[in-house]
Amino acid sequence: MAAPGENLRINGDRLWESIHEMARIGPGVAGGNNRQTLTDEDAEGRALFQKWCESAGLEMGVDEMGTMFATRKGEDADALPVYVGSHLDTQPTGGRYDGVLGVLGALEVIRTLNDLDIKTKHPIVVTNWTNEEGTRFAPAMLASGVFAGVHELDWANSRMDAKGLRFGDELERIGWKGPETVGARKMHAFFELHIEQGPILESEHKDIGVVTHGQGLSWTQVTVTGKESHTGSTPMPMRKNAGLGMAKILQLVDEIAWSHKPNAVGAAGHIDVYPNSRNVIPGKAVFTVDFRSPDLAVIQDMEKRLAAGAKQICDEMGLSVELEKVGGFDPVTFDEGCVRAVREAAERLGYTHRNIISGAGHDACWIARVAPTAMIMCPCVDGLSHNEAEEISKEWASAGADVLFHAVVETAGIVE
Amino acid sequence: MAAPGENLRINGDRLWESIHEMARIGPGVAGGNNRQTLTDEDAEGRALFQKWCESAGLEMGVDEMGTMFATRKGEDADALPVYVGSHLDTQPTGGRYDGVLGVLGALEVIRTLNDLDIKTKHPIVVTNWTNEEGTRFAPAMLASGVFAGVHELDWANSRMDAKGLRFGDELERIGWKGPETVGARKMHAFFELHIEQGPILESEHKDIGVVTHGQGLSWTQVTVTGKESHTGSTPMPMRKNAGLGMAKILQLVDEIAWSHKPNAVGAAGHIDVYPNSRNVIPGKAVFTVDFRSPDLAVIQDMEKRLAAGAKQICDEMGLSVELEKVGGFDPVTFDEGCVRAVREAAERLGYTHRNIISGAGHDACWIARVAPTAMIMCPCVDGLSHNEAEEISKEWASAGADVLFHAVVETAGIVE
Repeated sequence: MAAPGENLRINGDRLWESIHEMARIGPGVAGGNNRQTLTDEDAEGRALFQKWCESAGLEMGVDEMGTMFATRKGEDADALPVYVGSHLDTQPTGGRYDGVLGVLGALEVIRTLNDLDIKTKHPIVVTNWTNEEGTRFAPAMLASGVFAGVHELDWANSRMDAKGLRFGDELERIGWKGPETVGARKMHAFFELHIEQGPILESEHKDIGVVTHGQGLSWTQVTVTGKESHTGSTPMPMRKNAGLGMAKILQLVDEIAWSHKPNAVGAAGHIDVYPNSRNVIPGKAVFTVDFRSPDLAVIQDMEKRLAAGAKQICDEMGLSVELEKVGGFDPVTFDEGCVRAVREAAERLGYTHRNIISGAGHDACWIARVAPTAMIMCPCVDGLSHNEAEEISKEWASAGADVLFHAVVETAGIVE
Repeated sequence: MAAPGENLRINGDRLWESIHEMARIGPGVAGGNNRQTLTDEDAEGRALFQKWCESAGLEMGVDEMGTMFATRKGEDADALPVYVGSHLDTQPTGGRYDGVLGVLGALEVIRTLNDLDIKTKHPIVVTNWTNEEGTRFAPAMLASGVFAGVHELDWANSRMDAKGLRFGDELERIGWKGPETVGARKMHAFFELHIEQGPILESEHKDIGVVTHGQGLSWTQVTVTGKESHTGSTPMPMRKNAGLGMAKILQLVDEIAWSHKPNAVGAAGHIDVYPNSRNVIPGKAVFTVDFRSPDLAVIQDMEKRLAAGAKQICDEMGLSVELEKVGGFDPVTFDEGCVRAVREAAERLGYTHRNIISGAGHDACWIARVAPTAMIMCPCVDGLSHNEAEEISKEWASAGADVLFHAVVETAGIVE
């Protein structure tokens, strides 16, 4: 299939303006966004996106999870569409680019094709996945998970937010429950452009990350139980300090992750001790260990060593410990052909690039189960994401969308 | 001065009944008490105590901090009174005995003297110190601290609770702001009976703890600052994990305390990490290190080693650390004569006893600055205190009050 010529570029100014027009909806308190899934702000963002899609001549379809599919027709009536997109929902204190760049970058692909009056063999479908963030309704990547057959629709609809509101009810309330059966669409390929959300590309001055793998993830909630007692009147030999047991396990987590360098990582972001009073020795510590690796065997090894090591530490201290796996997904190897299309696009356009592993979960990680999939990453300032101060440059966004354009259009096939 | 005969005992049943009648006021949710200072429940407890004092023929005085002083006259008009008491306020999820035993044990001393028609040379003053717990209005031991000249009255009145209510306003609201100048009373001696709030006496099967010292305390709030970043997309070498830095410092705290065995202790009961999200590496950890020792030089050594060690740990990890001393008091050596009176009382009564260091702060620790002071401890089940499940036996309470009776009455001097 013919690839676009190397002179073809998207319109970076237009993309940048659209991103910042979208950011006006659900503004955060510190320059970012609070446009959580299935809120009124989400509905407003969807309406703006719909208006833009209609202006670009796309036909909108919506499935029962509220995922939006905006189709530009292809020339071959039998050819499966190339899907391209990400998500418009944000964290409660989220940035302007996470997810949004991937959806509006996809729209910019269409606008550029329209500008140049290019026709493709395969249809191209700009996609906005519902509830990628998972902050309001856990888990993350909910709609793409149902699409890929990972979750049941009924289960997804029954997810509740902190106020006890159901996902399914809130989706109906904002008017975005669609008629399409989730997962009925078949894909020729799926591409997702996303900011890195990490520091590697910026620190190495690379324009483009060619995402070869998605890291697998394992979340283990660890509960260490000791005995609450007075910090003053309990002699050292009589203490059962759950906080100290936790401290030793946190160091073990670090050692385990380093032992699988360079790609494995491990840490605990969530840590609570009880009763959390200055003069009471913690009787309980609850924390979640996050291990990731692109290699499933490594994840399994890390889990095993955590379980054995935590038990040994707690046995020696007279503490008890329970481990519960509270989240996980297997590593993803993205499609060889799609990844090559991304790499060749970066080469053709003269952008510096490197292979990269996606450390975070993305809709593409689920869709890779049901369609040839790849991701493109662009740098973000200081690796900062899920934060209102998240920042990228217009040039980075443009380069990412250029590569997305070339990879998608080559895959969809230009009809001369 | 003549000591009471070894056959003299307080009325353990009456003491036990009074304790459990008081426990009906401000019941907790799990069998304990929630009778926090300056609440309506505190006022109700004070009224019951006042009624009992009046029935016992005592004359009530109240100072500007709301501390209650119920006097049984002595035979010598010039003799300074022997004070005896503790506090009736409780933690939000407090036990039935902490503080209450000391106040009602003191009342039982009076009731027994009345039963036996014993006269003393020195007056005896049953005392209920306001706001010993400090949970609602920090710091703890507030009224005794003003009494001893540690705190200014105006400062104490300006303390605010979590709802923004002032101590002074709440004291007036419940009707217990008295006319007496705080600290104007001069004491011949002060005795406080208290549950151990630790596990030593029970585990060693001792009836009585003869409290020789109050441990000094040093609270250091440690703030470790790293960098919030994604647990998935931040390679190990690029992490600045404040939670991991905290874990290393917690182990250092443990090592430092053990190095000063057997009397020093150290731990962190309060631990918070930020943003405390499963997939964000902690950018900040804030925790409070509690060091205690009966030896001031040891406390100072522990503080120094914490400061130097935390800095070294954080320097090596690319973290920054700030230490702020947020609480402390110097070790207390109780009065030799008063301590001897307690030990001799236990001997005379045939109770097993051992010297003990008070690990917790008590009103007696402040009063020791302005009067000869001693404390008596009785065991508590499993060392549990500041907990609704706090428990002691009637026999333990009776033994403690017997010793209190003998020590107080000997010090006050029986007039034959």
